[in-house]
Amino acid sequence: MPRTIKLTLQYDGTEYVGWQRQAEGVSIQGLLEDALRPIEGAHVTVHGAGRTDAGVHALGQVASIKLTATMEATTLARALNAVLPRDVRVRDAAEAADDFHARFSATGKHYRYRILNGGPGSPFELRYNWHVPQPLDFDAMARAAAVLEGRHDFAAFAAAGSASASTERTVTAVRIRQDGAAWDVPGTLVTIDVEGEGFLRHMVRNIAGTLVEVGLGRWPAGAMQDILASRDRTRAGTTAPPQGLFLVEVRYAEPPCIFA
Amino acid sequence: MPRTIKLTLQYDGTEYVGWQRQAEGVSIQGLLEDALRPIEGAHVTVHGAGRTDAGVHALGQVASIKLTATMEATTLARALNAVLPRDVRVRDAAEAADDFHARFSATGKHYRYRILNGGPGSPFELRYNWHVPQPLDFDAMARAAAVLEGRHDFAAFAAAGSASASTERTVTAVRIRQDGAAWDVPGTLVTIDVEGEGFLRHMVRNIAGTLVEVGLGRWPAGAMQDILASRDRTRAGTTAPPQGLFLVEVRYAEPPCIFA
Repeated sequence: MPRTIKLTLQYDGTEYVGWQRQAEGVSIQGLLEDALRPIEGAHVTVHGAGRTDAGVHALGQVASIKLTATMEATTLARALNAVLPRDVRVRDAAEAADDFHARFSATGKHYRYRILNGGPGSPFELRYNWHVPQPLDFDAMARAAAVLEGRHDFAAFAAAGSASASTERTVTAVRIRQDGAAWDVPGTLVTIDVEGEGFLRHMVRNIAGTLVEVGLGRWPAGAMQDILASRDRTRAGTTAPPQGLFLVEVRYAEPPCIFA
Repeated sequence: MPRTIKLTLQYDGTEYVGWQRQAEGVSIQGLLEDALRPIEGAHVTVHGAGRTDAGVHALGQVASIKLTATMEATTLARALNAVLPRDVRVRDAAEAADDFHARFSATGKHYRYRILNGGPGSPFELRYNWHVPQPLDFDAMARAAAVLEGRHDFAAFAAAGSASASTERTVTAVRIRQDGAAWDVPGTLVTIDVEGEGFLRHMVRNIAGTLVEVGLGRWPAGAMQDILASRDRTRAGTTAPPQGLFLVEVRYAEPPCIFA
Protein backbone atom coordinates (compact mmCIF):
# COMPACT_ATOMS: atom_id res chain seq x y z
CA MET A 1 0.00 0.00 0.00
CA PRO A 2 1.71 3.20 -1.10
CA ARG A 3 1.67 6.16 1.29
CA THR A 4 0.73 9.72 0.34
CA ILE A 5 3.24 12.56 0.59
CA LYS A 6 2.50 16.26 0.47
CA LEU A 7 5.27 18.37 -1.07
CA THR A 8 5.45 22.15 -0.67
CA LEU A 9 7.45 23.72 -3.48
CA GLN A 10 9.04 27.04 -4.37
CA TYR A 11 10.23 27.79 -7.86
CA ASP A 12 11.27 30.45 -10.31
CA GLY A 13 9.20 29.64 -13.41
CA THR A 14 11.30 31.68 -15.86
CA GLU A 15 13.13 28.77 -17.44
CA TYR A 16 10.19 26.37 -17.60
CA VAL A 17 7.17 25.68 -19.82
CA GLY A 18 5.02 25.78 -16.69
CA TRP A 19 3.87 23.30 -14.06
CA GLN A 20 2.45 20.72 -16.41
CA ARG A 21 4.48 18.14 -18.32
CA GLN A 22 4.39 18.90 -22.06
CA ALA A 23 5.66 17.34 -25.25
CA GLU A 24 8.33 20.02 -25.62
CA GLY A 25 10.37 21.81 -22.97
CA VAL A 26 11.06 21.30 -19.30
CA SER A 27 8.16 21.47 -16.82
CA ILE A 28 8.21 21.57 -13.01
CA GLN A 29 6.04 18.45 -12.88
CA GLY A 30 8.43 16.69 -15.26
CA LEU A 31 11.49 17.66 -13.19
CA LEU A 32 9.88 16.24 -10.05
CA GLU A 33 8.72 13.04 -11.76
CA ASP A 34 12.21 12.54 -13.21
CA ALA A 35 13.78 13.13 -9.78
CA LEU A 36 11.37 10.67 -8.10
CA ARG A 37 11.83 7.81 -10.58
CA PRO A 38 15.21 6.52 -9.24
CA ILE A 39 13.94 6.84 -5.65
CA GLU A 40 10.77 4.81 -6.33
CA GLY A 41 12.25 2.58 -9.05
CA ALA A 42 9.16 3.32 -11.13
CA HIS A 43 7.24 6.26 -12.54
CA VAL A 44 5.59 8.46 -9.89
CA THR A 45 2.83 10.83 -11.00
CA VAL A 46 3.05 14.23 -9.31
CA HIS A 47 -0.28 16.06 -8.88
CA GLY A 48 0.04 19.83 -8.45
CA ALA A 49 -2.53 22.07 -6.80
CA GLY A 50 -2.18 24.83 -9.40
CA ARG A 51 -1.12 24.48 -13.02
CA THR A 52 1.09 27.55 -13.18
CA ASP A 53 1.87 28.76 -16.70
CA ALA A 54 5.30 29.31 -18.26
CA GLY A 55 7.16 32.08 -16.44
CA VAL A 56 4.84 32.03 -13.41
CA HIS A 57 6.48 31.46 -10.01
CA ALA A 58 5.52 29.65 -6.81
CA LEU A 59 6.22 30.60 -3.21
CA GLY A 60 4.01 27.75 -1.97
CA GLN A 61 2.86 25.33 -4.66
CA VAL A 62 1.61 22.04 -3.23
CA ALA A 63 1.93 18.64 -4.88
CA SER A 64 0.88 15.15 -3.82
CA ILE A 65 2.43 11.81 -4.67
CA LYS A 66 1.86 8.14 -3.88
CA LEU A 67 5.09 6.46 -2.87
CA THR A 68 6.07 2.87 -2.02
CA ALA A 69 9.68 3.73 -1.18
CA THR A 70 10.19 3.81 2.60
CA MET A 71 12.46 6.87 2.71
CA GLU A 72 11.51 9.34 5.47
CA ALA A 73 9.75 12.49 4.23
CA THR A 74 12.51 14.88 5.34
CA THR A 75 15.13 12.66 3.71
CA LEU A 76 13.01 12.63 0.56
CA ALA A 77 13.00 16.45 0.50
CA ARG A 78 16.80 16.51 0.80
CA ALA A 79 17.23 13.82 -1.87
CA LEU A 80 15.02 15.75 -4.30
CA ASN A 81 16.77 19.07 -3.62
CA ALA A 82 20.11 17.39 -4.28
CA VAL A 83 19.11 16.58 -7.88
CA LEU A 84 16.61 19.32 -8.76
CA PRO A 85 17.90 22.50 -10.42
CA ARG A 86 18.52 25.28 -7.89
CA ASP A 87 15.55 27.34 -9.10
CA VAL A 88 13.15 24.57 -8.00
CA ARG A 89 13.18 23.75 -4.27
CA VAL A 90 11.24 21.36 -2.07
CA ARG A 91 10.49 23.51 0.94
CA ASP A 92 8.77 20.74 2.85
CA ALA A 93 7.74 17.08 2.51
CA ALA A 94 5.28 15.47 4.93
CA GLU A 95 3.17 12.33 5.28
CA ALA A 96 -0.46 13.02 4.36
CA ALA A 97 -3.80 11.25 4.70
CA ASP A 98 -4.45 8.52 2.13
CA ASP A 99 -7.17 10.52 0.44
CA PHE A 100 -5.14 13.76 0.24
CA HIS A 101 -4.86 15.09 -3.31
CA ALA A 102 -3.06 18.40 -3.88
CA ARG A 103 -5.65 19.65 -6.38
CA PHE A 104 -8.94 18.03 -5.37
CA SER A 105 -8.45 18.55 -1.62
CA ALA A 106 -7.58 22.24 -2.02
CA THR A 107 -10.17 24.63 -0.57
CA GLY A 108 -8.48 27.87 -1.58
CA LYS A 109 -5.52 29.50 -3.29
CA HIS A 110 -3.65 32.73 -2.84
CA TYR A 111 -2.03 34.41 -5.84
CA ARG A 112 0.06 37.58 -5.92
CA TYR A 113 0.76 39.88 -8.84
CA ARG A 114 3.68 42.38 -8.65
CA ILE A 115 3.91 45.57 -10.69
CA LEU A 116 6.98 47.83 -10.59
CA ASN A 117 5.70 51.32 -11.31
CA GLY A 118 7.90 54.19 -12.47
CA GLY A 119 11.65 54.47 -12.71
CA PRO A 120 13.88 52.76 -15.27
CA GLY A 121 13.16 49.21 -14.01
CA SER A 122 14.91 46.93 -11.54
CA PRO A 123 17.99 45.00 -12.71
CA PHE A 124 17.45 42.70 -9.71
CA GLU A 125 13.83 41.73 -10.22
CA LEU A 126 13.50 41.49 -14.00
CA ARG A 127 11.98 38.05 -13.57
CA TYR A 128 9.56 39.03 -10.81
CA ASN A 129 7.46 41.99 -11.86
CA TRP A 130 5.70 43.77 -14.69
CA HIS A 131 7.47 47.09 -15.17
CA VAL A 132 4.97 49.87 -15.97
CA PRO A 133 6.95 53.14 -16.39
CA GLN A 134 3.92 55.51 -16.69
CA PRO A 135 2.29 56.79 -13.46
CA LEU A 136 -0.48 54.60 -12.05
CA ASP A 137 -3.44 55.99 -10.10
CA PHE A 138 -3.26 53.66 -7.13
CA ASP A 139 -6.53 54.83 -5.54
CA ALA A 140 -8.49 54.16 -8.74
CA MET A 141 -6.91 50.68 -8.93
CA ALA A 142 -7.87 49.99 -5.32
CA ARG A 143 -11.48 51.06 -5.95
CA ALA A 144 -11.68 48.85 -9.05
CA ALA A 145 -10.11 45.88 -7.24
CA ALA A 146 -12.64 46.01 -4.39
CA VAL A 147 -15.43 45.18 -6.86
CA LEU A 148 -13.99 41.71 -7.40
CA GLU A 149 -14.61 40.36 -3.90
CA GLY A 150 -17.49 37.91 -3.59
CA ARG A 151 -19.05 35.29 -5.82
CA HIS A 152 -19.21 36.39 -9.47
CA ASP A 153 -19.20 35.03 -12.97
CA PHE A 154 -15.60 35.79 -13.97
CA ALA A 155 -16.09 34.85 -17.66
CA ALA A 156 -14.70 38.26 -18.71
CA PHE A 157 -11.42 37.36 -16.99
CA ALA A 158 -11.06 33.79 -18.24
CA ALA A 159 -8.40 32.89 -20.80
CA ALA A 160 -9.68 33.35 -24.34
CA GLY A 161 -10.85 30.00 -25.67
CA SER A 162 -10.83 28.25 -22.30
CA ALA A 163 -13.78 25.95 -21.77
CA SER A 164 -14.41 25.60 -18.05
CA ALA A 165 -17.80 24.07 -17.21
CA SER A 166 -18.64 27.08 -15.04
CA THR A 167 -16.98 30.46 -14.88
CA GLU A 168 -18.44 31.35 -11.48
CA ARG A 169 -15.83 31.70 -8.76
CA THR A 170 -15.68 33.12 -5.25
CA VAL A 171 -12.95 35.64 -4.55
CA THR A 172 -12.61 35.77 -0.76
CA ALA A 173 -10.14 38.67 -0.59
CA VAL A 174 -8.44 41.22 -2.84
CA ARG A 175 -5.73 43.35 -1.27
CA ILE A 176 -3.71 45.94 -3.13
CA ARG A 177 -0.84 47.86 -1.59
CA GLN A 178 2.11 49.99 -2.62
CA ASP A 179 5.61 49.93 -1.16
CA GLY A 180 9.02 51.21 -2.13
CA ALA A 181 10.76 48.98 -4.67
CA ALA A 182 13.25 46.48 -3.25
CA TRP A 183 17.03 46.80 -3.75
CA ASP A 184 16.97 50.59 -3.44
CA VAL A 185 15.61 50.80 -6.98
CA PRO A 186 13.56 53.90 -7.92
CA GLY A 187 9.83 53.30 -8.32
CA THR A 188 6.88 51.90 -6.43
CA LEU A 189 5.99 48.25 -6.05
CA VAL A 190 2.26 47.64 -6.43
CA THR A 191 1.28 44.25 -5.05
CA ILE A 192 -2.13 42.71 -5.78
CA ASP A 193 -3.04 39.75 -3.56
CA VAL A 194 -6.06 37.72 -4.62
CA GLU A 195 -7.46 34.84 -2.61
CA GLY A 196 -10.28 32.59 -3.65
CA GLU A 197 -11.71 29.12 -3.69
CA GLY A 198 -10.59 28.59 -7.26
CA PHE A 199 -9.42 30.51 -10.29
CA LEU A 200 -9.99 30.39 -14.03
CA ARG A 201 -7.00 30.15 -16.31
CA HIS A 202 -5.29 33.59 -16.67
CA MET A 203 -7.85 35.08 -14.27
CA VAL A 204 -5.35 36.85 -12.00
CA ARG A 205 -3.26 38.07 -14.96
CA ASN A 206 -6.40 39.39 -16.69
CA ILE A 207 -7.46 41.13 -13.47
CA ALA A 208 -3.97 42.67 -13.17
CA GLY A 209 -4.07 43.80 -16.82
CA THR A 210 -7.47 45.41 -16.27
CA LEU A 211 -6.33 47.13 -13.07
CA VAL A 212 -3.36 48.61 -14.96
CA GLU A 213 -5.73 50.01 -17.63
CA VAL A 214 -7.66 51.66 -14.79
CA GLY A 215 -4.43 52.86 -13.15
CA LEU A 216 -3.28 54.44 -16.42
CA GLY A 217 -6.58 56.34 -16.59
CA ARG A 218 -7.67 54.66 -19.84
CA TRP A 219 -10.74 53.32 -18.05
CA PRO A 220 -12.56 54.68 -14.96
CA ALA A 221 -12.54 52.60 -11.79
CA GLY A 222 -16.22 51.84 -12.40
CA ALA A 223 -15.32 50.00 -15.61
CA MET A 224 -14.37 46.95 -13.52
CA GLN A 225 -18.03 46.48 -12.49
CA ASP A 226 -19.19 46.77 -16.12
CA ILE A 227 -16.56 44.34 -17.41
CA LEU A 228 -17.43 41.81 -14.72
CA ALA A 229 -21.15 42.12 -15.53
CA SER A 230 -20.52 41.78 -19.28
CA ARG A 231 -19.01 38.28 -18.90
CA ASP A 232 -17.28 39.14 -22.18
CA ARG A 233 -13.56 38.32 -22.45
CA THR A 234 -13.04 40.98 -25.13
CA ARG A 235 -13.98 43.69 -22.60
CA ALA A 236 -11.22 43.10 -20.01
CA GLY A 237 -7.68 44.44 -20.23
CA THR A 238 -4.72 42.63 -21.75
CA THR A 239 -3.31 39.61 -19.97
CA ALA A 240 -0.54 40.87 -17.69
CA PRO A 241 2.81 39.17 -18.39
CA PRO A 242 3.54 35.92 -16.51
CA GLN A 243 6.67 37.02 -14.64
CA GLY A 244 4.68 39.18 -12.18
CA LEU A 245 2.58 36.26 -10.94
CA PHE A 246 3.22 34.06 -7.90
CA LEU A 247 1.21 31.18 -6.47
CA VAL A 248 1.67 32.12 -2.80
CA GLU A 249 -0.23 29.46 -0.91
CA VAL A 250 -2.69 26.61 -1.31
CA ARG A 251 -5.20 26.06 1.50
CA TYR A 252 -6.77 22.82 2.69
CA ALA A 253 -9.78 22.24 4.94
CA GLU A 254 -7.90 20.19 7.49
CA PRO A 255 -4.19 19.66 8.00
CA PRO A 256 -3.53 16.81 5.56
CA CYS A 257 -0.47 15.66 7.53
CA ILE A 258 -0.91 12.67 9.82
CA PHE A 259 2.41 13.33 11.54
CA ALA A 260 2.44 17.11 12.00
CA MET B 1 34.90 72.63 -23.61
CA PRO B 2 33.25 69.34 -22.69
CA ARG B 3 31.16 69.22 -19.54
CA THR B 4 31.41 66.55 -16.86
CA ILE B 5 28.51 64.24 -16.08
CA LYS B 6 28.14 62.02 -13.02
CA LEU B 7 26.20 58.80 -13.65
CA THR B 8 24.78 56.66 -10.85
CA LEU B 9 24.30 53.09 -11.98
CA GLN B 10 22.61 49.91 -10.81
CA TYR B 11 23.37 46.56 -12.39
CA ASP B 12 23.16 42.83 -12.05
CA GLY B 13 26.70 41.67 -12.80
CA THR B 14 25.82 38.03 -13.50
CA GLU B 15 26.06 38.19 -17.29
CA TYR B 16 29.14 40.41 -17.48
CA VAL B 17 32.92 40.09 -17.26
CA GLY B 18 32.90 42.91 -14.69
CA TRP B 19 33.03 46.68 -14.75
CA GLN B 20 36.17 47.02 -16.83
CA ARG B 21 36.34 46.67 -20.62
CA GLN B 22 38.24 43.53 -21.57
CA ALA B 23 39.43 41.84 -24.75
CA GLU B 24 36.77 39.14 -24.43
CA GLY B 25 33.23 39.36 -23.15
CA VAL B 26 30.79 42.13 -22.33
CA SER B 27 31.67 44.64 -19.59
CA ILE B 28 29.52 47.32 -17.94
CA GLN B 29 32.03 50.00 -18.97
CA GLY B 30 31.95 48.70 -22.55
CA LEU B 31 28.14 48.74 -22.65
CA LEU B 32 28.09 52.36 -21.48
CA GLU B 33 30.82 53.46 -23.88
CA ASP B 34 29.00 51.76 -26.77
CA ALA B 35 25.72 53.44 -25.76
CA LEU B 36 27.40 56.87 -25.51
CA ARG B 37 29.18 56.74 -28.88
CA PRO B 38 26.16 57.58 -31.10
CA ILE B 39 25.10 60.34 -28.68
CA GLU B 40 28.52 62.01 -28.70
CA GLY B 41 29.47 61.02 -32.26
CA ALA B 42 32.84 59.91 -30.89
CA HIS B 43 34.32 57.58 -28.31
CA VAL B 44 33.56 58.58 -24.71
CA THR B 45 35.68 57.05 -21.95
CA VAL B 46 33.63 56.08 -18.90
CA HIS B 47 35.49 56.15 -15.57
CA GLY B 48 33.95 54.00 -12.85
CA ALA B 49 34.45 54.50 -9.12
CA GLY B 50 34.83 50.79 -8.39
CA ARG B 51 36.08 48.10 -10.74
CA THR B 52 33.56 45.43 -9.80
CA ASP B 53 34.55 41.89 -10.81
CA ALA B 54 32.54 39.47 -12.94
CA GLY B 55 29.29 38.52 -11.20
CA VAL B 56 29.48 41.40 -8.68
CA HIS B 57 26.47 43.75 -8.58
CA ALA B 58 25.99 47.47 -8.01
CA LEU B 59 23.20 49.29 -6.21
CA GLY B 60 25.07 52.60 -6.54
CA GLN B 61 28.12 52.48 -8.79
CA VAL B 62 29.25 55.94 -9.90
CA ALA B 63 30.85 56.82 -13.24
CA SER B 64 32.06 60.07 -14.74
CA ILE B 65 32.24 61.14 -18.38
CA LYS B 66 33.30 64.18 -20.38
CA LEU B 67 30.64 65.06 -22.93
CA THR B 68 30.42 67.66 -25.73
CA ALA B 69 26.86 66.71 -26.70
CA THR B 70 24.38 69.26 -25.35
CA MET B 71 21.67 66.78 -24.33
CA GLU B 72 20.21 67.47 -20.86
CA ALA B 73 21.40 65.11 -18.16
CA THR B 74 17.96 63.63 -17.46
CA THR B 75 17.39 63.11 -21.19
CA LEU B 76 20.79 61.44 -21.37
CA ALA B 77 19.77 58.99 -18.63
CA ARG B 78 16.60 58.10 -20.52
CA ALA B 79 18.48 57.75 -23.83
CA LEU B 80 21.02 55.40 -22.24
CA ASN B 81 18.32 53.31 -20.52
CA ALA B 82 16.53 52.94 -23.85
CA VAL B 83 19.52 51.14 -25.38
CA LEU B 84 21.21 49.47 -22.39
CA PRO B 85 20.20 45.91 -21.50
CA ARG B 86 17.55 45.81 -18.78
CA ASP B 87 19.98 44.46 -16.16
CA VAL B 88 22.04 47.67 -16.38
CA ARG B 89 20.21 50.89 -15.42
CA VAL B 90 21.21 54.53 -15.18
CA ARG B 91 19.54 55.56 -11.94
CA ASP B 92 20.63 59.18 -12.22
CA ALA B 93 22.64 61.53 -14.44
CA ALA B 94 23.72 64.99 -13.25
CA GLU B 95 26.07 67.79 -14.22
CA ALA B 96 29.25 67.72 -12.12
CA ALA B 97 32.19 70.01 -11.43
CA ASP B 98 34.87 70.04 -14.13
CA ASP B 99 37.39 68.32 -11.90
CA PHE B 100 34.99 65.59 -10.76
CA HIS B 101 36.32 62.09 -11.42
CA ALA B 102 34.29 59.09 -10.26
CA ARG B 103 37.35 57.22 -8.98
CA PHE B 104 39.84 59.90 -7.93
CA SER B 105 37.25 62.14 -6.26
CA ALA B 106 35.76 59.28 -4.23
CA THR B 107 36.33 59.54 -0.48
CA GLY B 108 34.64 56.31 0.53
CA LYS B 109 32.80 53.22 -0.62
CA HIS B 110 30.19 50.98 0.89
CA TYR B 111 30.09 47.29 -0.04
CA ARG B 112 27.59 44.66 1.08
CA TYR B 113 28.00 40.90 1.15
CA ARG B 114 24.91 38.66 1.44
CA ILE B 115 24.93 35.09 2.78
CA LEU B 116 21.83 32.89 2.78
CA ASN B 117 22.26 30.52 5.71
CA GLY B 118 20.38 27.24 6.10
CA GLY B 119 17.46 25.85 4.13
CA PRO B 120 17.58 24.46 0.60
CA GLY B 121 18.45 27.81 -1.02
CA SER B 122 16.35 30.55 -2.62
CA PRO B 123 15.09 30.05 -6.19
CA PHE B 124 14.50 33.83 -6.31
CA GLU B 125 17.92 35.08 -5.24
CA LEU B 126 20.31 32.57 -6.82
CA ARG B 127 22.26 35.48 -8.30
CA TYR B 128 22.37 37.54 -5.11
CA ASN B 129 23.78 35.50 -2.26
CA TRP B 130 26.22 32.83 -1.18
CA HIS B 131 24.16 29.88 0.06
CA VAL B 132 25.80 28.26 3.10
CA PRO B 133 23.56 25.35 4.22
CA GLN B 134 25.44 24.48 7.46
CA PRO B 135 24.60 26.46 10.64
CA LEU B 136 26.64 29.64 11.15
CA ASP B 137 27.52 31.01 14.59
CA PHE B 138 26.39 34.58 14.04
CA ASP B 139 27.78 35.91 17.34
CA ALA B 140 31.26 34.56 16.59
CA MET B 141 31.10 36.17 13.13
CA ALA B 142 30.06 39.50 14.67
CA ARG B 143 32.97 39.37 17.15
CA ALA B 144 35.42 38.57 14.36
CA ALA B 145 34.02 41.31 12.10
CA ALA B 146 34.42 44.00 14.77
CA VAL B 147 38.22 43.52 14.67
CA LEU B 148 38.33 44.91 11.14
CA GLU B 149 37.29 48.47 11.97
CA GLY B 150 40.06 51.05 11.88
CA ARG B 151 43.27 51.52 9.93
CA HIS B 152 45.08 48.24 9.27
CA ASP B 153 47.37 46.55 6.81
CA PHE B 154 44.85 44.34 4.97
CA ALA B 155 47.53 42.40 3.01
CA ALA B 156 46.07 39.10 4.30
CA PHE B 157 42.78 39.99 2.58
CA ALA B 158 44.18 41.25 -0.74
CA ALA B 159 43.73 39.21 -3.92
CA ALA B 160 46.59 36.72 -4.37
CA GLY B 161 49.15 38.23 -6.72
CA SER B 162 47.78 41.77 -6.58
CA ALA B 163 50.44 44.44 -6.44
CA SER B 164 49.01 47.52 -4.74
CA ALA B 165 51.65 50.01 -3.66
CA SER B 166 50.30 49.93 -0.12
CA THR B 167 47.92 47.43 1.48
CA GLU B 168 46.98 49.75 4.33
CA ARG B 169 43.32 50.75 4.30
CA THR B 170 40.87 52.37 6.72
CA VAL B 171 37.63 50.52 7.35
CA THR B 172 35.26 53.07 8.86
CA ALA B 173 32.41 50.68 9.68
CA VAL B 174 31.60 46.98 9.66
CA ARG B 175 28.00 46.01 10.38
CA ILE B 176 26.71 42.46 10.38
CA ARG B 177 23.06 41.56 10.84
CA GLN B 178 20.70 38.66 10.34
CA ASP B 179 17.17 38.78 9.00
CA GLY B 180 14.64 36.32 7.64
CA ALA B 181 15.28 35.39 4.02
CA ALA B 182 13.24 37.31 1.42
CA TRP B 183 10.44 35.69 -0.61
CA ASP B 184 9.25 33.55 2.31
CA VAL B 185 12.20 31.23 1.72
CA PRO B 186 13.48 29.17 4.68
CA GLY B 187 16.80 30.28 6.11
CA THR B 188 18.51 33.35 7.52
CA LEU B 189 20.01 36.17 5.51
CA VAL B 190 23.34 37.32 6.96
CA THR B 191 24.30 40.74 5.61
CA ILE B 192 27.81 42.14 6.05
CA ASP B 193 28.15 45.86 5.33
CA VAL B 194 31.68 47.22 5.07
CA GLU B 195 32.47 50.88 4.60
CA GLY B 196 35.89 52.34 4.07
CA GLU B 197 38.00 54.91 2.31
CA GLY B 198 39.23 52.33 -0.17
CA PHE B 199 39.44 48.61 -0.69
CA LEU B 200 41.97 46.14 -2.03
CA ARG B 201 40.90 43.79 -4.81
CA HIS B 202 38.80 40.89 -3.40
CA MET B 203 39.10 42.40 0.11
CA VAL B 204 35.39 42.23 0.96
CA ARG B 205 35.02 38.74 -0.53
CA ASN B 206 38.08 37.52 1.40
CA ILE B 207 36.67 39.04 4.60
CA ALA B 208 33.31 37.32 3.94
CA GLY B 209 35.09 34.01 3.28
CA THR B 210 37.01 34.33 6.54
CA LEU B 211 33.87 35.25 8.51
CA VAL B 212 32.16 32.12 7.16
CA GLU B 213 35.10 29.97 8.35
CA VAL B 214 34.62 31.52 11.79
CA GLY B 215 30.83 31.05 11.57
CA LEU B 216 31.27 27.37 10.72
CA GLY B 217 33.45 26.97 13.82
CA ARG B 218 36.55 25.97 11.87
CA TRP B 219 38.37 28.97 13.32
CA PRO B 220 37.74 30.86 16.58
CA ALA B 221 36.54 34.47 16.39
CA GLY B 222 40.02 35.53 17.60
CA ALA B 223 41.58 34.12 14.43
CA MET B 224 40.54 37.28 12.59
CA GLN B 225 42.98 39.34 14.68
CA ASP B 226 45.81 36.87 13.99
CA ILE B 227 45.12 36.72 10.26
CA LEU B 228 45.03 40.51 10.02
CA ALA B 229 48.34 40.77 11.94
CA SER B 230 49.99 38.09 9.78
CA ARG B 231 49.54 40.16 6.59
CA ASP B 232 49.75 36.74 4.89
CA ARG B 233 47.20 36.03 2.14
CA THR B 234 47.49 32.27 2.68
CA ARG B 235 46.10 32.67 6.21
CA ALA B 236 42.67 34.13 5.37
CA GLY B 237 39.62 32.13 4.29
CA THR B 238 38.63 31.34 0.73
CA THR B 239 37.37 34.14 -1.49
CA ALA B 240 33.59 34.23 -1.14
CA PRO B 241 31.81 33.86 -4.51
CA PRO B 242 31.11 37.06 -6.46
CA GLN B 243 27.31 36.85 -6.59
CA GLY B 244 26.92 37.82 -2.92
CA LEU B 245 28.74 41.14 -3.36
CA PHE B 246 27.16 44.56 -4.03
CA LEU B 247 28.77 47.97 -4.42
CA VAL B 248 26.13 49.89 -2.45
CA GLU B 249 27.34 53.48 -2.54
CA VAL B 250 30.29 55.68 -3.44
CA ARG B 251 30.88 58.75 -1.30
CA TYR B 252 32.37 62.11 -2.28
CA ALA B 253 33.68 64.95 -0.11
CA GLU B 254 31.33 67.55 -1.57
CA PRO B 255 28.29 67.18 -3.77
CA PRO B 256 29.86 67.09 -7.24
CA CYS B 257 26.68 68.36 -8.86
CA ILE B 258 26.64 72.03 -9.83
CA PHE B 259 22.87 71.95 -10.41
CA ALA B 260 21.58 69.96 -7.47
